[in-house]
Amino acid sequence: MLGKIALEEAWSTPEALASSGLVTSLAPKGVIGPDLVASLLDVHGTRLQQMDANGVDRMVLSLSSPGPQGVADPGQAEALAAAANDCLADEVAKNPARFAGMVSVSMHNPAQAAAEVRRCVVGGGNKGRFVGVIVNDYQSVLVSSKDGDGGGKGKIGMRFYDVGTEYDEFWRAAEELDLPVYIHPREATPEVFDLMWKDRPWLAYSALGYAHRVGMHMLGIVTSGVLDRFPKLKIVIGHMGEHIPYDLYRIDHKLNRARFPNMPMAKDKLVRDYFGTQLFITTSGHFSTPALLCAMQEIGAESIMFSIDYPFESIPNGCVWYDEHVPISNRDLVDIGRNNALRVFSRLREGPHGLKEKGPRECGVGGLGLRKGDEGEVEYGLYNKSWDQRLERR
Amino acid sequence: MLGKIALEEAWSTPEALASSGLVTSLAPKGVIGPDLVASLLDVHGTRLQQMDANGVDRMVLSLSSPGPQGVADPGQAEALAAAANDCLADEVAKNPARFAGMVSVSMHNPAQAAAEVRRCVVGGGNKGRFVGVIVNDYQSVLVSSKDGDGGGKGKIGMRFYDVGTEYDEFWRAAEELDLPVYIHPREATPEVFDLMWKDRPWLAYSALGYAHRVGMHMLGIVTSGVLDRFPKLKIVIGHMGEHIPYDLYRIDHKLNRARFPNMPMAKDKLVRDYFGTQLFITTSGHFSTPALLCAMQEIGAESIMFSIDYPFESIPNGCVWYDEHVPISNRDLVDIGRNNALRVFSRLREGPHGLKEKGPRECGVGGLGLRKGDEGEVEYGLYNKSWDQRLERR
Amino acid sequence: MLGKIALEEAWSTPEALASSGLVTSLAPKGVIGPDLVASLLDVHGTRLQQMDANGVDRMVLSLSSPGPQGVADPGQAEALAAAANDCLADEVAKNPARFAGMVSVSMHNPAQAAAEVRRCVVGGGNKGRFVGVIVNDYQSVLVSSKDGDGGGKGKIGMRFYDVGTEYDEFWRAAEELDLPVYIHPREATPEVFDLMWKDRPWLAYSALGYAHRVGMHMLGIVTSGVLDRFPKLKIVIGHMGEHIPYDLYRIDHKLNRARFPNMPMAKDKLVRDYFGTQLFITTSGHFSTPALLCAMQEIGAESIMFSIDYPFESIPNGCVWYDEHVPISNRDLVDIGRNNALRVFSRLREGPHGLKEKGPRECGVGGLGLRKGDEGEVEYGLYNKSWDQRLERR
Amino acid sequence: MLGKIALEEAWSTPEALASSGLVTSLAPKGVIGPDLVASLLDVHGTRLQQMDANGVDRMVLSLSSPGPQGVADPGQAEALAAAANDCLADEVAKNPARFAGMVSVSMHNPAQAAAEVRRCVVGGGNKGRFVGVIVNDYQSVLVSSKDGDGGGKGKIGMRFYDVGTEYDEFWRAAEELDLPVYIHPREATPEVFDLMWKDRPWLAYSALGYAHRVGMHMLGIVTSGVLDRFPKLKIVIGHMGEHIPYDLYRIDHKLNRARFPNMPMAKDKLVRDYFGTQLFITTSGHFSTPALLCAMQEIGAESIMFSIDYPFESIPNGCVWYDEHVPISNRDLVDIGRNNALRVFSRLREGPHGLKEKGPRECGVGGLGLRKGDEGEVEYGLYNKSWDQRLERR
Repeated sequence: MLGKIALEEAWSTPEALASSGLVTSLAPKGVIGPDLVASLLDVHGTRLQQMDANGVDRMVLSLSSPGPQGVADPGQAEALAAAANDCLADEVAKNPARFAGMVSVSMHNPAQAAAEVRRCVVGGGNKGRFVGVIVNDYQSVLVSSKDGDGGGKGKIGMRFYDVGTEYDEFWRAAEELDLPVYIHPREATPEVFDLMWKDRPWLAYSALGYAHRVGMHMLGIVTSGVLDRFPKLKIVIGHMGEHIPYDLYRIDHKLNRARFPNMPMAKDKLVRDYFGTQLFITTSGHFSTPALLCAMQEIGAESIMFSIDYPFESIPNGCVWYDEHVPISNRDLVDIGRNNALRVFSRLREGPHGLKEKGPRECGVGGLGLRKGDEGEVEYGLYNKSWDQRLERR
Repeated sequence: MLGKIALEEAWSTPEALASSGLVTSLAPKGVIGPDLVASLLDVHGTRLQQMDANGVDRMVLSLSSPGPQGVADPGQAEALAAAANDCLADEVAKNPARFAGMVSVSMHNPAQAAAEVRRCVVGGGNKGRFVGVIVNDYQSVLVSSKDGDGGGKGKIGMRFYDVGTEYDEFWRAAEELDLPVYIHPREATPEVFDLMWKDRPWLAYSALGYAHRVGMHMLGIVTSGVLDRFPKLKIVIGHMGEHIPYDLYRIDHKLNRARFPNMPMAKDKLVRDYFGTQLFITTSGHFSTPALLCAMQEIGAESIMFSIDYPFESIPNGCVWYDEHVPISNRDLVDIGRNNALRVFSRLREGPHGLKEKGPRECGVGGLGLRKGDEGEVEYGLYNKSWDQRLERR
Repeated sequence: MLGKIALEEAWSTPEALASSGLVTSLAPKGVIGPDLVASLLDVHGTRLQQMDANGVDRMVLSLSSPGPQGVADPGQAEALAAAANDCLADEVAKNPARFAGMVSVSMHNPAQAAAEVRRCVVGGGNKGRFVGVIVNDYQSVLVSSKDGDGGGKGKIGMRFYDVGTEYDEFWRAAEELDLPVYIHPREATPEVFDLMWKDRPWLAYSALGYAHRVGMHMLGIVTSGVLDRFPKLKIVIGHMGEHIPYDLYRIDHKLNRARFPNMPMAKDKLVRDYFGTQLFITTSGHFSTPALLCAMQEIGAESIMFSIDYPFESIPNGCVWYDEHVPISNRDLVDIGRNNALRVFSRLREGPHGLKEKGPRECGVGGLGLRKGDEGEVEYGLYNKSWDQRLERR
Repeated sequence: MLGKIALEEAWSTPEALASSGLVTSLAPKGVIGPDLVASLLDVHGTRLQQMDANGVDRMVLSLSSPGPQGVADPGQAEALAAAANDCLADEVAKNPARFAGMVSVSMHNPAQAAAEVRRCVVGGGNKGRFVGVIVNDYQSVLVSSKDGDGGGKGKIGMRFYDVGTEYDEFWRAAEELDLPVYIHPREATPEVFDLMWKDRPWLAYSALGYAHRVGMHMLGIVTSGVLDRFPKLKIVIGHMGEHIPYDLYRIDHKLNRARFPNMPMAKDKLVRDYFGTQLFITTSGHFSTPALLCAMQEIGAESIMFSIDYPFESIPNGCVWYDEHVPISNRDLVDIGRNNALRVFSRLREGPHGLKEKGPRECGVGGLGLRKGDEGEVEYGLYNKSWDQRLERR
């Protein structure tokens, strides 16, 4: 499919990478792609070539996790966010026909986060380059030890954004500027890692642990009433919804109002009812046809958007899955692959981006035979164009 | 679901029933519903009560099959159509807030058919009451015996509407007036019945034979280029698409252009590509979840519209299936149940009908717990509201 | 997937091709594969190479349609069947580790058909080479002209095998010998072609017309009580069931016993209830994931068997679909791909074939990473093994 | 469907309820069913009546969570388990034609746990009454405070069973005796509750938190190599697999062996490959058709077993869903509803239970029309037996 838009696509700067120190330790060359660090730093080289080769019209870039959320000092976190945003604005400005950005924010101070969002979106030089906001799961904060040991340095705690009305100033800014907020995973604190994951560390990251906290956080935001207070606010999560769509029946069934009378979410709504207008998911890093079909049945095609999770995932792998393997209708394919992104991230329609919705034909989508130069395909087949030889897999 | 619109819903007059003689012979009382003939003649009594009880906002009525298509004499067929249309306009006028109609036409003469359509739709008294056109499979025509036996009366032949450009005047009228054309099944001629069905007559009707001819006819219309010549023309078939969606891969794959270079359909399109803009299906009489899910994967939710096929099917049976059993998203449910009908039959938005699209909430759709007075359902369950007793089935 | 068994795979002899004259006229070189006639005549050359390259362990060969069914003269039809069976037995004998056969029969005379089946299966030299019987839709017969024109030659009529108890002797032989009967499509008679297809000839063959008659025939056999009289008889149809699974709800719903009290099928059964024990389908020529998923929901994985329809379809196209695109569980994949064939065609377990059921691992099936030499795939992805380059499509 | 077997069905004794104190505080009368405590204590009264009314042939009972896992003192936990097992054996003995049991164990000491399992299963009086083992997520243990505050009582820690080879003696006993181990959820420790859930407590229990730990635990057991060391050991989890099936692609994809070279699981297997032989799920408390269809595509019908989760769920609600709403084939319905339980819990075939596999007909399953006294259903419809009135919902 031509014209795809990809939304959870990481990028970084040497400074940001240094501040976290995480990625390099976890991913020596060759373990995740040929060179993860080089791929994070690249925008206009290999990344763009692979976009061209795989029908990706636009990538919305965001600073790689944990970004400012990994910095427990408020001032340092705010500085990291501002520097990364300026840098990303410059990168987008070099090729706004192919890239857009999400604003990174420190989440230590909701007012400051709101101000940074406004600075990036309505400030002079950056106009039109940012189309959403990214937050990485929880904000690392310094907490004094419970036991008051007085021993100087405290431990790292997690601040989530669903508690009471604490973050309303931030949510209000995102709603006013029509910037969807993308919640991206990050690693657990050492304390939580020790409690839950240290005996099974391979499960702590993208295989399972990431989804646990992001799914909880998204449900926390919904059930604490944030979406009711800000009815135009849009929240996006990746990885096919961090398994929430599969469990939606049970989640709604078990959020029994008789049992939890103090849950702030609107009494006459279910979590299910927020999908498609305020809650959205992407396919990033979860190229599974059964999961996609299940999500379409539970939350509808209009709640789902294509994404890759580059460079933690391979662009050709995600795109071959989406372009050739997904057994859905032409219309759903181009909506999930492109048009829904324009409905959710409405700023992609404006300014230097100026994207428009497209029909199946404009995206080269048409079942058997419509792909460029494929007249023979009707005869020879959808899955293997050669009549008598299987495709060579490199 | 409240607010449903149903599209393949039969009605008749004593005169039309007499002209065919078919229905009464096939359906003694109690075999299809309590009294098929009474149900066909009724509009504002039991039918409306059942609509109220089952969330059917609007029924688009059409003269029961075969209507004018069953009359081999052109003049008689035209008179039957005109009389039925006048009668239906009157019935709709009595309650345009709940009913609309489809124009019946004799298909002996395309120009006359076009004229009758215009008379009903743009003529003075009928304004706004008709929203589509119904044709019953083939037109019965009198053909002279092949063998030229000269013995007086000829036999009954089938005239289909996909041959060459013969029916273009009719298609043009439907396109200009934005009236979708619904192709409804009818029985085989005696000749075809003898050849194919007489040793297995139970398969000749709605179980199998109907679908054979309607599916062929619809594919004939597409492949002969009608939809290319009239790019705003919309064709609708019922019964979950007369098995076409299931076979769409094979149909497109086997309409090999190298093998059939003279097939008139646009060379760069597939049958699949016409769905959602020019081809649509309804659920009439085919309340099957696996078939619906398959159709949604192949042709997309936007190509599918709810219908019942009353009184050949039970209103509560079709509506209980749709309201309670179909495992699709809120949005797809209200689109297939209502909104798609307004997109396809655009005249339902105008004049005395004035229908509007609705969201899930307006239709009482919201997963667990949103139905009227169902607060307890979140706790007790979606499928059986009593905690400890199974629903009574009457 | 390694170890696949394919069941609807055509082969022919120069004599049989000459007798029909059909295939060559329809398929000039390059229209269906590089050379359809050469592919039909070949067994141990290109065919076997492509089986090797695509994980096809075994092909069950049958004489290409229409075979004896296309010969209206009983004696000639019987001679053609016997000659083809002898020839096929020889071909299988050359490599029984890779090939098996289905018996062709003339269906003019049920007793003679039964005798030919017995000759091939229990007769000395052929022992173990045949595992099923193939019949091509209807038997062509010579009928005297209706109009009694006395002009010498009659016209061609269709004899189906579902009328009364006429073919019981044939069914009994198939049941006793545990030989499933595969009903294969063939073209319409000139009379039916003229009535239904001549204005839309591209629909008359594999795109639509074939399925009409085979589906009707299979339903005729079930509803006329053949499977009740022979409760161990097994019937197989290809092309994903000729759209029967999609329509199964409607078929059973409309075979209303109150309306059709004389339908001979067991009163307490539905068509649905025969699948998995007496009715089976194959995937031949219908490589559609939505259709497969629908069929699995309606009739269950145990009713479905992989097939290609070579050489009317490409072996790599069918196998790439099945091996790489089908989103079903490991167990269902190997059952549909192989094991179900051994349960239905039980003679494949015996004699020179001696096939055994296999588990996913033995078939190289194991989700990500288990395919030979694919250690890197867990990292780089299921759909495209290269991290940064899309697969080359030849 | 008649003949269903339900596997995750809770029962308790006054003593066990008192030891936990949890259930009563969480569920005042009317919040979960009419009276949760009374329902837990009942076996042969209301429970059995509802089984009769809903086609549940057999319930496998187990002590309600947390059972011995909630007792941090080893001796008390062991005593609680032994007393509950004796009590359950007595209850089963009163009606072994309808009930069986799972052994509860303290998991403080693997050798003692193994001994208790053997005592219950091979010991004299209990023979044949137990068919599996239940463990409730983690074992509560007393840990000395990290900060060594010496202040007397330590805090409660979680012991999981996937660490190293620590629990091999327990797994060996379960494997030898062919007793599947069912991992049941329980609440978090106060420490984990404070860290993750206290600001969103409504998510801490069955809506989300339970699934987090049970899913992690099950994946921990697989990835730490337990199933490789005990290749006949079977693990069962409920709630449609605690969202693991939906994420299976991502889980296997992200358990990148290059990144986690020390993960003990067999190098040539994926998590996916253990389903159907060593890993199984049940439908308990998750009556979602899209989730069931997704699980069937990912792990296959043979990996799934029906269950209700009574009395935390309503028997009629779970059974109406399964009997009337689930759109799967006859064979899959009776396998998931009954036969798979006999394949996994093989002791149900023996001794006083003596259960046998059944076909669709024996279970009253046959699409339209086969249910007892439902001859009219073919005519009137699957979803609503009355032609003209919607079912009354109580």
